[in-house]
Amino acid sequence: MARIRLTVEYDGTNYSGWQRQENAVSVQQRLEEALSKLLRAEIRVTGASRTDAGVHALGQTAHFDTDSRIPPEKYAFALNTMLPDDIRVRASMAAAPDFHARFDARAKIYRYLIWNSPHASALLRLSHAHVMYPLDAARMDEEARSVIGTHDFKAFAASGSVAKDTVRAIHDCRVARAGGEVMLLVRGSGFLYNMVRILAGTAIQVGCGKLEPGAIARALDGKSRLSLGITAPPHGLTLMRVFYADDESEAAAYFDGILRRFHD
Amino acid sequence: MARIRLTVEYDGTNYSGWQRQENAVSVQQRLEEALSKLLRAEIRVTGASRTDAGVHALGQTAHFDTDSRIPPEKYAFALNTMLPDDIRVRASMAAAPDFHARFDARAKIYRYLIWNSPHASALLRLSHAHVMYPLDAARMDEEARSVIGTHDFKAFAASGSVAKDTVRAIHDCRVARAGGEVMLLVRGSGFLYNMVRILAGTAIQVGCGKLEPGAIARALDGKSRLSLGITAPPHGLTLMRVFYADDESEAAAYFDGILRRFHD
Repeated sequence: MARIRLTVEYDGTNYSGWQRQENAVSVQQRLEEALSKLLRAEIRVTGASRTDAGVHALGQTAHFDTDSRIPPEKYAFALNTMLPDDIRVRASMAAAPDFHARFDARAKIYRYLIWNSPHASALLRLSHAHVMYPLDAARMDEEARSVIGTHDFKAFAASGSVAKDTVRAIHDCRVARAGGEVMLLVRGSGFLYNMVRILAGTAIQVGCGKLEPGAIARALDGKSRLSLGITAPPHGLTLMRVFYADDESEAAAYFDGILRRFHD
Repeated sequence: MARIRLTVEYDGTNYSGWQRQENAVSVQQRLEEALSKLLRAEIRVTGASRTDAGVHALGQTAHFDTDSRIPPEKYAFALNTMLPDDIRVRASMAAAPDFHARFDARAKIYRYLIWNSPHASALLRLSHAHVMYPLDAARMDEEARSVIGTHDFKAFAASGSVAKDTVRAIHDCRVARAGGEVMLLVRGSGFLYNMVRILAGTAIQVGCGKLEPGAIARALDGKSRLSLGITAPPHGLTLMRVFYADDESEAAAYFDGILRRFHD
């Protein structure tokens, strides 16, 4: 048996999310169908992150096992001839037999995009949340930075969340503006269900004056969801990349690169 | 009667192009339907550019006449409640009674986007043409610049084109790379049918070595379509903005701004 690692990009618009579920089409299901057809065996894949319905990914990471002798780097090409065009395998490679896409992940970077204008955008409607009220990106940036550090993010846990351990380390979080676009970028060891969307919703509400600055600090202090803003809609969110090195430098460089290219 | 000017953005994916036609849904039709409903009268709009099926626009310009007393700037808000979400009116304003969106246009800027990677992109599939062969953007830039100037673009006229006057002035044309994305940006007084897509297709083929550099110069010289490359697919193309001032400075500044923000 060999373990293969995949880097997967998808437009989440037409999917119920990453994870397989009844009565709805997921990205995992489409990927498993393509792999099972290719390898003529029932294949199960494990993803790093269970992205929600409507959430996109540029660099979801997944693994599966096979005894096929297909060269590992060929899976990307073979799968891309079988997958729908809103799911693409960007890369495939051999992984260590004990590599685990989810448990071995050391850091993830998520991007939340906003189109900030009185009118919605036709071209950005599937990738950006529309906010019509003017946003103060500098104020949002200051608010967003207050999540940096190791905190108990209980207040950020979506209602109905089953996570027991709600402590996470956020390594960096920034908000920037480029014309009518506003981006929140966050890098951390892990995220609770809906955590990035609650973070984005809180930053948006602070940015347009509907919430007082300091909402995140108050929520981390009081552990209450009520101190925070709305859960921002899923289609603004993209899982950018998953990192497996203990050393943070690769993730930090990727984060800084995205920020550097996003400006007026 | 008052003349109103509209700036229109659309995702061309689901339309047969700007112009009304039988048996297919066009952007013009959807806009006229919304306006006619809003104003309870048959309204016809005139657009600056007849973009093709699948081509997008960020700043198509159009005009129409009405005797309604709706304040001109309110049309954008009213129309956006009635239009499908892949068509948005970005702005509406009063125009001079003799303003003509098409005949008064002094310059247009088009952008052609390419995703250059062995694998197609899921997230960019509707806005970027996919080219799997490595592209030399510097070589493409040099080739693209050779269209600058006032030339007889007969070689660029699509077969079946009915244009009699094929002389156009191209003010600027550049190719740049940002990671896996390659952009061709062109600014000119006007463009023949398919001209930008033939220009992009030629730049692509020069960029991957399938055509010798100098193809554009040879085509301008010999007036032959055969010296040029393929007609690149429509979905990479976006009409960015239409300019009405005789002075070129506004268009030049907008062009330079797009180029400046597009880099690694």
